[in-house]
Amino acid sequence: MKKTFKRILYGGDYNPNQWPREVWNEDIRLFRKAGINSATINVFSWAKIQPSENEYYFDELDEIIEMLSRENYDIVLATSTAALPAWMFKKYPEVARTDFDGHHHKFGQRHNACPNSPIYQKFAGRLAEKLAERYGSNEHVTCWHVNNEYGGECFCENCEKAFRVWLKDKYKTIEALNQAWNLEFWGHTVYDWDEIVLPNALSEGIDYERTAFAGMSIDYRRFNSDSMLNNFKMERDAIRSFDPHTPITTNLMGTYKNLDYFKWAKEMDIVSWDSYPAYDTPWSMVAMRHDLMRGLKGQPFMLMEQTPSQQNWQPYNSLKKPGQMRAQSYQTMAHGADTIQFFQLRRSAGACEKFHGAVIEHAGTENTRVFREVSRLGEELKTLGDRLLGAENPAQVGILFDWDNYWSLEYTSGPNKDLKYVDQIHQYYRYFYEKNIPVDMIPADADFSKYKAVIAPVLYMMKDGMQQALEDYVKNGGTLVTGFMSGIVDQSDNVHLGGYPGPLRELAGIWVEEIDALAPEQSNTLRFTDGTEGVCRLLCDIIHLEGAVSIADYTSNFYAASPAVTKNSFGQGTVYYVGTQLEQNALGKVLNLVMASADVKPVIDETTKLEITCRTISNQCYYFIINLTGETLSIPHIFTGKEDILTGNVLTSQTTFAPYDVALVCEEKK
Amino acid sequence: MKKTFKRILYGGDYNPNQWPREVWNEDIRLFRKAGINSATINVFSWAKIQPSENEYYFDELDEIIEMLSRENYDIVLATSTAALPAWMFKKYPEVARTDFDGHHHKFGQRHNACPNSPIYQKFAGRLAEKLAERYGSNEHVTCWHVNNEYGGECFCENCEKAFRVWLKDKYKTIEALNQAWNLEFWGHTVYDWDEIVLPNALSEGIDYERTAFAGMSIDYRRFNSDSMLNNFKMERDAIRSFDPHTPITTNLMGTYKNLDYFKWAKEMDIVSWDSYPAYDTPWSMVAMRHDLMRGLKGQPFMLMEQTPSQQNWQPYNSLKKPGQMRAQSYQTMAHGADTIQFFQLRRSAGACEKFHGAVIEHAGTENTRVFREVSRLGEELKTLGDRLLGAENPAQVGILFDWDNYWSLEYTSGPNKDLKYVDQIHQYYRYFYEKNIPVDMIPADADFSKYKAVIAPVLYMMKDGMQQALEDYVKNGGTLVTGFMSGIVDQSDNVHLGGYPGPLRELAGIWVEEIDALAPEQSNTLRFTDGTEGVCRLLCDIIHLEGAVSIADYTSNFYAASPAVTKNSFGQGTVYYVGTQLEQNALGKVLNLVMASADVKPVIDETTKLEITCRTISNQCYYFIINLTGETLSIPHIFTGKEDILTGNVLTSQTTFAPYDVALVCEEKK
Amino acid sequence: MKKTFKRILYGGDYNPNQWPREVWNEDIRLFRKAGINSATINVFSWAKIQPSENEYYFDELDEIIEMLSRENYDIVLATSTAALPAWMFKKYPEVARTDFDGHHHKFGQRHNACPNSPIYQKFAGRLAEKLAERYGSNEHVTCWHVNNEYGGECFCENCEKAFRVWLKDKYKTIEALNQAWNLEFWGHTVYDWDEIVLPNALSEGIDYERTAFAGMSIDYRRFNSDSMLNNFKMERDAIRSFDPHTPITTNLMGTYKNLDYFKWAKEMDIVSWDSYPAYDTPWSMVAMRHDLMRGLKGQPFMLMEQTPSQQNWQPYNSLKKPGQMRAQSYQTMAHGADTIQFFQLRRSAGACEKFHGAVIEHAGTENTRVFREVSRLGEELKTLGDRLLGAENPAQVGILFDWDNYWSLEYTSGPNKDLKYVDQIHQYYRYFYEKNIPVDMIPADADFSKYKAVIAPVLYMMKDGMQQALEDYVKNGGTLVTGFMSGIVDQSDNVHLGGYPGPLRELAGIWVEEIDALAPEQSNTLRFTDGTEGVCRLLCDIIHLEGAVSIADYTSNFYAASPAVTKNSFGQGTVYYVGTQLEQNALGKVLNLVMASADVKPVIDETTKLEITCRTISNQCYYFIINLTGETLSIPHIFTGKEDILTGNVLTSQTTFAPYDVALVCEEKK
Repeated sequence: MKKTFKRILYGGDYNPNQWPREVWNEDIRLFRKAGINSATINVFSWAKIQPSENEYYFDELDEIIEMLSRENYDIVLATSTAALPAWMFKKYPEVARTDFDGHHHKFGQRHNACPNSPIYQKFAGRLAEKLAERYGSNEHVTCWHVNNEYGGECFCENCEKAFRVWLKDKYKTIEALNQAWNLEFWGHTVYDWDEIVLPNALSEGIDYERTAFAGMSIDYRRFNSDSMLNNFKMERDAIRSFDPHTPITTNLMGTYKNLDYFKWAKEMDIVSWDSYPAYDTPWSMVAMRHDLMRGLKGQPFMLMEQTPSQQNWQPYNSLKKPGQMRAQSYQTMAHGADTIQFFQLRRSAGACEKFHGAVIEHAGTENTRVFREVSRLGEELKTLGDRLLGAENPAQVGILFDWDNYWSLEYTSGPNKDLKYVDQIHQYYRYFYEKNIPVDMIPADADFSKYKAVIAPVLYMMKDGMQQALEDYVKNGGTLVTGFMSGIVDQSDNVHLGGYPGPLRELAGIWVEEIDALAPEQSNTLRFTDGTEGVCRLLCDIIHLEGAVSIADYTSNFYAASPAVTKNSFGQGTVYYVGTQLEQNALGKVLNLVMASADVKPVIDETTKLEITCRTISNQCYYFIINLTGETLSIPHIFTGKEDILTGNVLTSQTTFAPYDVALVCEEKK
Repeated sequence: MKKTFKRILYGGDYNPNQWPREVWNEDIRLFRKAGINSATINVFSWAKIQPSENEYYFDELDEIIEMLSRENYDIVLATSTAALPAWMFKKYPEVARTDFDGHHHKFGQRHNACPNSPIYQKFAGRLAEKLAERYGSNEHVTCWHVNNEYGGECFCENCEKAFRVWLKDKYKTIEALNQAWNLEFWGHTVYDWDEIVLPNALSEGIDYERTAFAGMSIDYRRFNSDSMLNNFKMERDAIRSFDPHTPITTNLMGTYKNLDYFKWAKEMDIVSWDSYPAYDTPWSMVAMRHDLMRGLKGQPFMLMEQTPSQQNWQPYNSLKKPGQMRAQSYQTMAHGADTIQFFQLRRSAGACEKFHGAVIEHAGTENTRVFREVSRLGEELKTLGDRLLGAENPAQVGILFDWDNYWSLEYTSGPNKDLKYVDQIHQYYRYFYEKNIPVDMIPADADFSKYKAVIAPVLYMMKDGMQQALEDYVKNGGTLVTGFMSGIVDQSDNVHLGGYPGPLRELAGIWVEEIDALAPEQSNTLRFTDGTEGVCRLLCDIIHLEGAVSIADYTSNFYAASPAVTKNSFGQGTVYYVGTQLEQNALGKVLNLVMASADVKPVIDETTKLEITCRTISNQCYYFIINLTGETLSIPHIFTGKEDILTGNVLTSQTTFAPYDVALVCEEKK
Repeated sequence: MKKTFKRILYGGDYNPNQWPREVWNEDIRLFRKAGINSATINVFSWAKIQPSENEYYFDELDEIIEMLSRENYDIVLATSTAALPAWMFKKYPEVARTDFDGHHHKFGQRHNACPNSPIYQKFAGRLAEKLAERYGSNEHVTCWHVNNEYGGECFCENCEKAFRVWLKDKYKTIEALNQAWNLEFWGHTVYDWDEIVLPNALSEGIDYERTAFAGMSIDYRRFNSDSMLNNFKMERDAIRSFDPHTPITTNLMGTYKNLDYFKWAKEMDIVSWDSYPAYDTPWSMVAMRHDLMRGLKGQPFMLMEQTPSQQNWQPYNSLKKPGQMRAQSYQTMAHGADTIQFFQLRRSAGACEKFHGAVIEHAGTENTRVFREVSRLGEELKTLGDRLLGAENPAQVGILFDWDNYWSLEYTSGPNKDLKYVDQIHQYYRYFYEKNIPVDMIPADADFSKYKAVIAPVLYMMKDGMQQALEDYVKNGGTLVTGFMSGIVDQSDNVHLGGYPGPLRELAGIWVEEIDALAPEQSNTLRFTDGTEGVCRLLCDIIHLEGAVSIADYTSNFYAASPAVTKNSFGQGTVYYVGTQLEQNALGKVLNLVMASADVKPVIDETTKLEITCRTISNQCYYFIINLTGETLSIPHIFTGKEDILTGNVLTSQTTFAPYDVALVCEEKK
């Protein structure tokens, strides 16, 4: 159990610097009313704090911190390094990024620094240091927030040079590099490190999503992720030199592709993230992102940002309906959050986020639906106190999520361009979500032995050690589910020769001779051993059994009667291999078998459309019961007679859950 | 009444320079036959007239002007500055533009000059001067046509410097600029004018349609419009120094986005424009563009270009059907045109407009349908004489159209990306069009007191003085119709704080607490006080009545039962607020109420699908009766027994209007 | 009859350099088993062969050639110049291309050399020379394969300079150039050659597909095609100086747009090409491409590349079904191939083509379906021996295909953007394909007299001499079919004035007054003289008969009752003019009439869905009978009792053809 904070942080991004002083006082009055106890400040103030190369100006920030300290706020103090001052671009154009098309940028937007610019590094490090020196000993500074939503990439000359250094460090010799990237192909052999150029539109990039040399482009992604991580570490270390204890984070973005968050999380004290589902994002996807964020460190996380009402940068920014923000906040906590923070506390009057919702809207009053809903939640969280802080989310099932696989799978040229990593993972996740079976999202190097079942779809890239780890896991009784496009390549995107699925072949007891690709208008059918039928799409492995048994055969195309889904015993354990993209209900049939044989249980025995999640702490189980459907649902029997902690009401067999209704029930662990 | 010309100019773009001399003679023969009395010349001849930096060659142009003068043509003399000579690009690359992506261009296409290039300005001014000096005293030169279809934009270094000067002139201090653009947001504070960069893809431009700092991008649009307007004024003044009287114009392009035509029109003697509807453009949109062009100066305009038959640059260039060109020409006159000019008189043999229709087609003869239709119209216009020249288009309704709103509304990041300015305006216009209720398109600073009703949809940006002007108007008995996304921001795109619709809140007697966004597949329903129902989409204001009454409430979503459309009494007047995008028939219900209460009348009392428009001069009313539908329509009773001026026939109760039929009836004003 | 090789080459691309030596031995074992007798090598080895400016290293290639020679392989030896070494880009950045947007590229991908770079030319020529000197006398080197899939284009400064030289050579005077490009239009007159810039996105290019000056852009395409052809000729001549006899080819790409293959073929000893239909490419399109490749020289061609199973660079890379590769190979031979070569013999382990099928898959064994199918075909080809080598494809119908028309038709600005050259040609081809009527694809300067009917759809550009040639052909009894968008422009894209279809007007006996464009949702109807009806789209010519008779009139739109399809007698011959895009069955009605009147016969009299093709040699006819439908088909009576050469079986009236079944029957010519 890890308790990072003393209370549930309830607050969010706050930019008093955008407003005159009289507004600050009104803010404090309103925050108090809403139960706000925390504020994230200084996210975008570099230009204000450092008006020129040698001047620093902290007066305003001093005042803000003083005001918040006076109110006993938990201050989340950002380092402001995510948006560089205009003067820096003018004086040092190298701090700007060069984009995928090769254009070097000028001042504008944010997240615009070249991660490998020595000038940027120098100024950013110095700023973090100065902030830590000045505010690190303030007890109200509860958390450091480095930069903001790291992301993007740069293709400038400084990055090109740094890439060569990174590669030399990784591969040591130019021969090893030629080998790793298979540069003999298309006559790409290089003889010197400085013949290497960054893979963008001017070189190997076919377009932003496609590359002629996946090995190179994957390494570039690793390099880019590492470069930004180095930026983070540099700021973190600068802070640590003045403030030895306050936790340091940076806000992540769920399944954001560009950064290997598992690697990042190792360097962060606590994971925080910004949750912005679109109006049509499935709730299972929202939950999966939370579980992924919790999984990064296997610990509770911070919800650094969510909107109280509306976003602005989606194509269609629907309002959150009454109760929705509350329900969504509890869903977040249910999946591991120890804080609820908003972007933002007061709505900006101008620039591109002025249509983004806030606790205090442009009307400027407490007389809004949004404010009332925020206040109600504030009240409840106060009642809840610290009892849930640090609580765990026990799970018997682990789903493997891996950025190397994310990148490499989506760089494949063939067999089917519609293959998307997150969607593939989410299809499996959704099954467990709908069954209320808790899941951990786990990295490729996880300790699998903690799980009754490990789900590893599209495990395209099997890096060194993974075969051994998976074999050990299954041999000792574990259940592994994997499937098409797995075991194909090594860490450099070179094929594991000798027959697919390469290092999984013996484990799965099959050989995949060929992989058929279906266009969107095409599908195949299959039949399960119980006689029921199903439909599949996208890709169809043509499988030969090598010890496994078939649990579903194709019934169409020239490979009709050959196995589509198989099961293999290996040591004490079992491996399921799903050779094609099943429709959701057909996948459900397979996973029902898996759960039965692996003896995996849902949180409660009853079937319900309510989302039921359980967090445990000491010997308590906290059940979050949330209605995220559009219908009114009845209560599961198991909860009748229990108290809803949030309202103090006792749940009866007559209790129903209207859309967005929530209850929280606590029981002794059995 | 303003009579610019002595007769209806009937002609168009003519490029004899593309042809050998023998063709010129044939042209004259054919023009005579077609009733052509005017030609627009010298539109693209700079390279011919000025073969190098210090040489000018006017012999050919002399000959053309002599020939046309001999024939007593009204010459519309262009200055040729819209396409620069190739040698100028070679010698002075700065004359080319830099595009949104940051690419500096080379010689090519047209409208390719950087408006802030001193070299371009010098050469263009000198050319206009030389032309005016040489031909300004020729009485056949009836109109000057500066440049051609000004448009586009430039992001070069000269423009960047000029932008800083423009900003300094506008904002005086850097603090005022920081305030106006809310640069505290995302830490964009600037300390020096030369830290400002143009907002393109290398800086604040997210893509061509989107920006991180709308305030900056709107100012850039104003600056760019002003820059080109300065080019126009420079040429105009150069001409004026030699020719004190001949009217000077440049051809505009309807609802073209980039230039603030209301501002431009103030500098032009007469508005001219080029009308190019696509095969599927609604006739109401065509009419609206004409009304907008008339509204720019509140005066008759020139139709500088239309095709006699076919365009070439649309995706699908359908032929105008028999009678269509005639009907469309009369529609143009009905809405305020005093000239009918074609692009073009003879079809080019080569280059990219060779598939654009012309009076003389590639066949080169008078034996074509197109030529016959042009000749018939020429005959009619001759008969019509000068009686309609300068006639007015009286209207009781003004629809507000404003380029600042056009730009700012479409730059909003949120709530709904499908919000398009012209479409929103057109939805209202269409109602009046279909009812044959005449409308003026009016600027934000119009004299509203002339109108019984002022329609101001999506009045997103309310600039200084507008609140006062609208309040005065309504207080004195006016009727104002406005609605969602109105009153939101000031001239710098910063929100009018204190609750939407800001400066319209008291006027409309409502407070809009929230704005919901609907995706394309979503809709809400509403019910009018008379019990009828309607459907709405796109955006839904959640409205609180503050003195207004509801005339329609939502019946779906969580804001069911809250007002969707309201009506408020203010002083002697009334304000209607339409809080959501109604389907056309539902909007019609609202506007029926408005027209009834404001006592606005259509041109004739009878309901008809014919377009009926009225122009008045002295004490005469001219009714243009045009069938722009695909069906044959019966005659309104009021016109039976009247003479059709165009044919001399008397209209009887048996008279029907086949598709594209037209009649023109004159009556004494009552 | 031309017999280039001693046997049917059966093999394909082979890159042992990507593999360790032990794999080479295994390769040889497997190739032997599969009946492989040929290998294409050294396609991408420049970087390996020339590690730096002054070093050459041939040891590995020596070994490979030695190994293949030992096995008595027919070696297709490539020159490796299609992908430049990385060091060359580093040292000489000019060797890279500048793309359409004006970006100069760096090292990356392949086919990346500027064709007008003197550095590239020097190094490429020297490499070809060295290879020829070293291996030209090896009798196993059966064919030289210069470069690989020439394509793309370059817009760099070297190309700009070379373009000016090319233009000067073509036009001699700047006046002639101004005239040809109609530069008077839009004031584009140039006074000096160096005012000319390449037509890309920075100049005349509206986008990649559209241009402001088609005349210029077409000349650029000719220039670019010539530039690459010069690269080819340079290598060819370098080879010839050491190896006087071995045939030299380069692999083409069917209807690839950028290169004028008819011009290229004149410089090649034998045409070779790479056939990569997508999963949904109609078989008639596949056949048309083969016929086009055969037509380039009017001789048998090499199938240089096809996949044995699966591609990787299509969006959806379906497997070839059992039998499909065999059927497709015979279809290729049926249309003129004398070789069957695969890309590739062994699948790459890494880089972007690793999901492209190969004879030896990643499994590395002979125990795959693909390997078995390759082996079966190898067996059959061995049995077949050399009897078919050099056989002809007699045809009574020629379909005109012309790159100048391809380019110019698709550059037209108007009337309809959906007009695509290859689709237009294919619509006609498909008719003949489905009737089993053999067709030659012929160039604009073909000897038409060889054909009973010449089909020339969208003959938009009629160059000098074509009118005379077509008139002579028809006068002497030929049948010509042409139609809308024909006879419009001359070689410079300037209109043939005097009425469409210009030089075809007298021949067709019609005048096209106007050309209507229909949007995709629009169509017109027409009625044939026999009373049957049809539907047409895209474009509708409005036709006046000038001697011709109508065989179908429009029945809708304002030109209802005017002719849509006409027939004209001219001398001894007949001209059909199809004035609109007919639906396939309506076009079939017209072409049935044409075939009847021209006395053109299918290969066999019977109607069948089988593809029946005939190749003749000496006095033998070889009938390829192939089922490319998804249904089982019965045998045509004419083949009952004949022996299937491939199996030795006698075909009986009970014989049926399952999908992908093939038979080959030989008969004496009658």
